[in-house]
Amino acid sequence: MIKTIVEHRSIRKYKSLPIADELLSQILEAGTRASTTGNMQLYSVVVTRDEEKKASMAPLHFNQPIVKEAPVLLTICADLNRFNRWCELRKADAGYDNFLWILNSVVDASLFAQNICLAAESEGLGICYLGTALYNAPEISEVLKLPNGVIPVTAITVGYPDQNPPLTDRLPLDAIVHDECYSPNTEQRINEIFSEKEALESSARFVAENGKENLAQVFTDVRYKKADNLHFSAKLLQFLKSQGVDI
Amino acid sequence: MIKTIVEHRSIRKYKSLPIADELLSQILEAGTRASTTGNMQLYSVVVTRDEEKKASMAPLHFNQPIVKEAPVLLTICADLNRFNRWCELRKADAGYDNFLWILNSVVDASLFAQNICLAAESEGLGICYLGTALYNAPEISEVLKLPNGVIPVTAITVGYPDQNPPLTDRLPLDAIVHDECYSPNTEQRINEIFSEKEALESSARFVAENGKENLAQVFTDVRYKKADNLHFSAKLLQFLKSQGVDI
Repeated sequence: MIKTIVEHRSIRKYKSLPIADELLSQILEAGTRASTTGNMQLYSVVVTRDEEKKASMAPLHFNQPIVKEAPVLLTICADLNRFNRWCELRKADAGYDNFLWILNSVVDASLFAQNICLAAESEGLGICYLGTALYNAPEISEVLKLPNGVIPVTAITVGYPDQNPPLTDRLPLDAIVHDECYSPNTEQRINEIFSEKEALESSARFVAENGKENLAQVFTDVRYKKADNLHFSAKLLQFLKSQGVDI
Repeated sequence: MIKTIVEHRSIRKYKSLPIADELLSQILEAGTRASTTGNMQLYSVVVTRDEEKKASMAPLHFNQPIVKEAPVLLTICADLNRFNRWCELRKADAGYDNFLWILNSVVDASLFAQNICLAAESEGLGICYLGTALYNAPEISEVLKLPNGVIPVTAITVGYPDQNPPLTDRLPLDAIVHDECYSPNTEQRINEIFSEKEALESSARFVAENGKENLAQVFTDVRYKKADNLHFSAKLLQFLKSQGVDI
């Protein structure tokens, strides 16, 4: 099991093989075994297999080719709607349309998602997360007909791998793990933590290709630019409000 | 692997056995193999093993006994601080202190957390999530000395199981899975989805013990009350703002 976890790589090229219904159900069922706040299961998944639907979803994920190429696209949602509706029909005064509970449901949806991914991988499938679900949440919501209180949190492509990429680099473990108290990010600590990543040949290439001074600037000036971040952040916040979440 | 996933139960009673440092490192390392937006690893974990520290943390988790009884308490944090600090030192104009990126980092921290749990379980350990981390995020932050941009998202107790509880019930899979489009939660659908849960003997007991009309009211009037939800939601939002997140 730990082997499946540590050998994860995102798969961006799939064989043109469908995933059997029964296998997909087994994987999604495994998803629901993840811990969930108060056993409330404040999440849903929309399964996209229809070619036309995938074509509508592709531009909302910035036309990443895997959206159309993967046999299955899963849109993982935080879902307050189902629980709220149950409360309403049982004359129970729900109070979940707020910031705390949307965060609870984002966490629960993410645990559900990660169980799905590991279950899929343990069955020989490959997955790739698409963080773009949060960027175009309103448009995705329209295509998938998500009601009030339902927010796309992330998306996952699933299929049989047609590539075997190398493991991605990670920061050294002591960058992430703090013993008893948070270790302040002093200049020396930051230099140590990031030195290996900055020294990678791929990093040097990104810096050169983009005409930047260093890798951090590739992130801030090319990959995730401040103006884009602010735009999509405001859009997301507005969408949550329009979905009935009081923030 | 799928076996480890589907056999998960939260463990709330542990043997008084420590967890070897090497095993803990292996598990946390497995955590870092989870997918992460742009490979930015916007998360951290604070490990609490010190008895005094656990005693300070216990009331912040509403004195749930496992906080003191588990050999290890992990506080999983969304962490924008490390990445921001790197950008700052490299003269890169970061734009991550906003709603979009705090959600990105909450998702990433949750995937990291779930990998840790499954790795722990596959090594014979038991875990229990404590959603209370979000309720008392400011106080937890003070005890663990979390800097700007670092938010406790969830906590996990880890130890060798000293109980073997039954699997928890879940909603039927078709409550969670939507084919191509979201299936509206009509009255009929809600009645069907929740009928099994409402018919459980434990549900009848909760309803009777609390003098309520039905299970939904046990949630809204006893377990997660509207007034509490609103209080903790406002407190959390305020805390994020005070940590430098622009919402």
